[in-house]
Amino acid sequence: MAGNSFGQLFRITTFGESHGAAIGVVIDGCPPNIEIDQDFIQGELDKRKPGQSRITTQRKESDEFQILSGIFENKTTGTPLAIIIPNSDQRSKDYDHNKDIFRPSHADFTYEAKYGIRDHRGGGRSSARETAARVAAGAIAKLFLQKSGVEIFAHVSGVGIIEAPEPSSADLKQLETIRESNLVRCADENKAAEMVEYIDGIRKAGDTVGGRISCVIKNCPAGLGEPVFDKLHAELGKAMLSINAVHGFEYGSGFKGSEMRGSQHNDIPVATNDPTKMETVTNFSGGVQGGISNGMDITFKVAFKPVATIMHNQPTIDKEGNSAEIKGKGRHDPCVVPRAVAIIEAMAALVIADHLLRNQSVKQNFSV
Amino acid sequence: MAGNSFGQLFRITTFGESHGAAIGVVIDGCPPNIEIDQDFIQGELDKRKPGQSRITTQRKESDEFQILSGIFENKTTGTPLAIIIPNSDQRSKDYDHNKDIFRPSHADFTYEAKYGIRDHRGGGRSSARETAARVAAGAIAKLFLQKSGVEIFAHVSGVGIIEAPEPSSADLKQLETIRESNLVRCADENKAAEMVEYIDGIRKAGDTVGGRISCVIKNCPAGLGEPVFDKLHAELGKAMLSINAVHGFEYGSGFKGSEMRGSQHNDIPVATNDPTKMETVTNFSGGVQGGISNGMDITFKVAFKPVATIMHNQPTIDKEGNSAEIKGKGRHDPCVVPRAVAIIEAMAALVIADHLLRNQSVKQNFSV
Amino acid sequence: MAGNSFGQLFRITTFGESHGAAIGVVIDGCPPNIEIDQDFIQGELDKRKPGQSRITTQRKESDEFQILSGIFENKTTGTPLAIIIPNSDQRSKDYDHNKDIFRPSHADFTYEAKYGIRDHRGGGRSSARETAARVAAGAIAKLFLQKSGVEIFAHVSGVGIIEAPEPSSADLKQLETIRESNLVRCADENKAAEMVEYIDGIRKAGDTVGGRISCVIKNCPAGLGEPVFDKLHAELGKAMLSINAVHGFEYGSGFKGSEMRGSQHNDIPVATNDPTKMETVTNFSGGVQGGISNGMDITFKVAFKPVATIMHNQPTIDKEGNSAEIKGKGRHDPCVVPRAVAIIEAMAALVIADHLLRNQSVKQNFSV
Amino acid sequence: MAGNSFGQLFRITTFGESHGAAIGVVIDGCPPNIEIDQDFIQGELDKRKPGQSRITTQRKESDEFQILSGIFENKTTGTPLAIIIPNSDQRSKDYDHNKDIFRPSHADFTYEAKYGIRDHRGGGRSSARETAARVAAGAIAKLFLQKSGVEIFAHVSGVGIIEAPEPSSADLKQLETIRESNLVRCADENKAAEMVEYIDGIRKAGDTVGGRISCVIKNCPAGLGEPVFDKLHAELGKAMLSINAVHGFEYGSGFKGSEMRGSQHNDIPVATNDPTKMETVTNFSGGVQGGISNGMDITFKVAFKPVATIMHNQPTIDKEGNSAEIKGKGRHDPCVVPRAVAIIEAMAALVIADHLLRNQSVKQNFSV
Repeated sequence: MAGNSFGQLFRITTFGESHGAAIGVVIDGCPPNIEIDQDFIQGELDKRKPGQSRITTQRKESDEFQILSGIFENKTTGTPLAIIIPNSDQRSKDYDHNKDIFRPSHADFTYEAKYGIRDHRGGGRSSARETAARVAAGAIAKLFLQKSGVEIFAHVSGVGIIEAPEPSSADLKQLETIRESNLVRCADENKAAEMVEYIDGIRKAGDTVGGRISCVIKNCPAGLGEPVFDKLHAELGKAMLSINAVHGFEYGSGFKGSEMRGSQHNDIPVATNDPTKMETVTNFSGGVQGGISNGMDITFKVAFKPVATIMHNQPTIDKEGNSAEIKGKGRHDPCVVPRAVAIIEAMAALVIADHLLRNQSVKQNFSV
Repeated sequence: MAGNSFGQLFRITTFGESHGAAIGVVIDGCPPNIEIDQDFIQGELDKRKPGQSRITTQRKESDEFQILSGIFENKTTGTPLAIIIPNSDQRSKDYDHNKDIFRPSHADFTYEAKYGIRDHRGGGRSSARETAARVAAGAIAKLFLQKSGVEIFAHVSGVGIIEAPEPSSADLKQLETIRESNLVRCADENKAAEMVEYIDGIRKAGDTVGGRISCVIKNCPAGLGEPVFDKLHAELGKAMLSINAVHGFEYGSGFKGSEMRGSQHNDIPVATNDPTKMETVTNFSGGVQGGISNGMDITFKVAFKPVATIMHNQPTIDKEGNSAEIKGKGRHDPCVVPRAVAIIEAMAALVIADHLLRNQSVKQNFSV
Repeated sequence: MAGNSFGQLFRITTFGESHGAAIGVVIDGCPPNIEIDQDFIQGELDKRKPGQSRITTQRKESDEFQILSGIFENKTTGTPLAIIIPNSDQRSKDYDHNKDIFRPSHADFTYEAKYGIRDHRGGGRSSARETAARVAAGAIAKLFLQKSGVEIFAHVSGVGIIEAPEPSSADLKQLETIRESNLVRCADENKAAEMVEYIDGIRKAGDTVGGRISCVIKNCPAGLGEPVFDKLHAELGKAMLSINAVHGFEYGSGFKGSEMRGSQHNDIPVATNDPTKMETVTNFSGGVQGGISNGMDITFKVAFKPVATIMHNQPTIDKEGNSAEIKGKGRHDPCVVPRAVAIIEAMAALVIADHLLRNQSVKQNFSV
Repeated sequence: MAGNSFGQLFRITTFGESHGAAIGVVIDGCPPNIEIDQDFIQGELDKRKPGQSRITTQRKESDEFQILSGIFENKTTGTPLAIIIPNSDQRSKDYDHNKDIFRPSHADFTYEAKYGIRDHRGGGRSSARETAARVAAGAIAKLFLQKSGVEIFAHVSGVGIIEAPEPSSADLKQLETIRESNLVRCADENKAAEMVEYIDGIRKAGDTVGGRISCVIKNCPAGLGEPVFDKLHAELGKAMLSINAVHGFEYGSGFKGSEMRGSQHNDIPVATNDPTKMETVTNFSGGVQGGISNGMDITFKVAFKPVATIMHNQPTIDKEGNSAEIKGKGRHDPCVVPRAVAIIEAMAALVIADHLLRNQSVKQNFSV
């Protein structure tokens, strides 16, 4: 299969280029009778949309969506939902200078090499604009997950070399309030201020910087994940790595865990007298053991490289392989992570929704 | 779909438990007319098999394989290859003490929670024994890749807090010779000696330790990878994260890259006057841009947590959720990475083989 | 996976209800650099659209389509094509009387039983309106197939008990001219007249009638089809059976062939001195042997039941399982086959396009 | 994906050639805690095995199976079941005369054209021997379905021009007793005798003949089937058409239904005062409406062409495309339908099992 679908039973297919008529997504397999809260969906899209603040790109796109199918009297019907987001503010002319040039660390050359044709305007299909469709689909997944009590929270835990401490609170509502009160979407107020100032400096220098987003999934039932290949953390990893600019994924103890000893790393279970439950003293496993959720918090972290478009002129090559120069202009994010928080949550919601459904076929036989 | 298949067009399905009659794999989609070198396959399996040295588990398994179908006069026919590896040295009794106990940081509880039944002997399906089937399949993929010149090389680049430097040579044959000359499979002789001594100490202390494996894929043609979800690095990430004990994956600049600025991180292309080629001064992109290979070296790193089975008694719980103690006994690896090098290479070969085939359908139209 | 996608590599996902905002399709996997002829696509849609003649439904829908993505300068780019067809002439009120009633031989009860919710307007997702999206996608597939010379021709070969003879000519252009010159789309002028008159009588009686469509695929290369489950004829069969109202599929000799002896039925090959070619005296195999095309004409026939909506009052039940009566009103086809010819050709084109791409991964190794 | 897998959630992958070491199947997605009755599985295989009677091939194969994985203490564990059936009585020499010849109406040429290599012994992968693996998998599916009360019954309803009447009884146990008491597996005693005599005559003449098998599925819950492409009857159709020698499939009224009027064909519902139930006066719909089961009997019929191997010499071509003669020898079935009854039931069981699981993800939300 071509690569524009994700998920098995809660399955999305996204489409659309940066400067076409619209981008969008088809969701096939969303269960019926889910109430659709259109304001909630728009709210999710607004967290990702450009032009939010001085530390994001100044492009303005309203990212208003339309649901074309799959709902009746505002409830899902079990048939495919098609959602489109028309493109606006398309200054296609802005990209004429890129037509015959391969920009450094962009996908220009690779799309040309693969397909023999390339929509150069705004990166075409390789533009992060595509992720708006993911956020819309993720919002539907979140509405579905609300019934089961699963909660997902991501925030910016690192920008450049600045690292935020683990949030001290476990109250996600509280953390969300803090996160949404600062431009960088960090759950730590002090580090947030530091990050904003840092990004602002980067922006003024015409440069960009990478960052990290941490995510926790709470109240996920035990049993999700399909060994041996579709392990829950492997699916989360693929979901995150498929997001533009992501260069790394770790869950639980992650890379740090590879430096530890077994006697330190093992999560010792606590006696609860409840055979259906697993509680552990530590959670280096990140809520997943053998690829299956154990009911503890699922934790993971994602690393984003710096945005490739900078405001400096850079040497590069043209389509003939000859030397060229790329001008530093356009409207771009100095750091992608503040807007990417919504994308991380959306992809996490899609993975959990899909695995909730996949796990149904296993559970089927318990009660018989 | 259930989770025991990997790949779309070069597709494997593994089966088997640690203590059943056999483990194995079916490969569906291997192209016809590939010459099968049985010694090569056995050689790959031998790199993964237990009992290799004093720093691996002392269990002895010969891991001899048998091809049941899909070849004729020693060539593949385009029909499914089924390969089985009978289980031997099954001391099932060794595991009686685990029958009603959930071991810390193992998949005992999660398999019970998911399936309501569990083959407790040696971890059943969650045992890393399953990866032998992957290595056999990966060997077939390597034989296929030989025709296209793709080369894959992995080695142990970290054990606990010991980190090996990047190999100074780009000659993979030479690096392989070094790697195979030491017990830990590190391409740096000095660090290898340090690592072996370190693991030996860990082993004597009845403990275990995590580690890291780095991998490079050379001569991969530009154009592999299927945006936007089946990006080449996302597929590599999922493949690696599906391996037992893996907790992290990064490619190119990885987590370190998220601390960098765009002006540092951008890989500046070199003029070659060849429109079909991309050469860059640096390779922070790790050979993949926009999810598609660009022809440069593909580089990634994988983090393994420490083995959960240690030779110490540990508090835990039983199937009723009550307190219990797990005894420190059995035969296990103090560090999994020396044997896991073969698994990393196998999974990488499977991903590249699959994407070579997937890319055929895109290329179809160029020449018409 | 949910059931709204078809094909593996040339893969379509349709969406939309009879009375929602729009219906549409996403095509993922269409090769790049296919020239898009928008008039051709509209022409295909026009063959299926309602209101064509006195023997089809009198509903008027213009079925104008819009391509939202996947093309650049009028060529496919290898990224997903999204096509939408807005709904018009939606007299939703016409369906209020059906809201709480299950119509005989419709999908009202089964959608309610499956999903617990149902868009009753015009049959919702179960409406044959969905097939317009298939025709649009099939038109893209046909444009792709033009390069390889594959030709597809379907026509109405039976209406009720009237059966048309096999077309005497093998010139598809000529047959198409005849077919498009009569209202029923039969390639035999005499039988066409008889059929039109017959359907007209049925229509006046407020009744409906079933029919049959025959299809031939010419110039299909040998080698298409993926045994043992995705045999070419099995995929064609599934494609056809997925069309509304289809109750039967046969290829080559079909049901008649099951009455024959092997000595009659075997297709004796003709010596051509060309090792890449198969020519046979007869073609009871219908161009497919062992599930793989042999290069001869692929032939199959599809049976459609009569349309369930008739202009008579009928006893039925309501949502509570109580007796009810359904009134004979609305605007419906007396016989579905004249409009279904375009759907049969579209689905055939999608199957062949998909298998052309799937066969690429097998061919890969021949030349190496 | 390559074509050797069937089903989405109850998914099988078969492997093996007629004259390799073994054939077999991997079942991925079978729910846990199904009791495995090995005698039942063997009984199913025995109904398909060669050498049963004078009207089947005289080859002797015991078709003894071995389960390699996926069960623990005789229950399924939710992990993949691998089942192998070693090949025996392999007179490979018998096939030397076919090595360079393409037999009429066999898959010799098409396998060669597709793969460029061919295991000519006994037809290799194209041999109907592969269906033994399907029967073994189908037996597991039947054990799973027993819990839900679904019953499947197939019998030979036609041989050549002989047609059996619809069984007068609805008691499947009784019909099975009749069916198993005659060599041809027809549920009508009188027609059975006629068919046996007819086949015997065909056999003595060194010829073969086609036939038809009818199947009914009882107690299938309403709601199975996934529109718009994976309609229940479309999946049954593909399953049946994928069986060797099948040339046609129809369900409910089938081809005959395409001759009827709507006023005759509509299945009028009966008032039951039960909103969860659909009972109709007639059942021309064959238990499926809009691609979803309605709870009535599911009925379909399958047409088999005559076996291509006959005991007469026939003109044909060799691998160079030159004239050749194929000798009439070997051990083959004069008519395939008596042994194919078990295959039809197996494939039906696999389709229903898969759709029971697929329907779980839809049902998920009803109770919330």
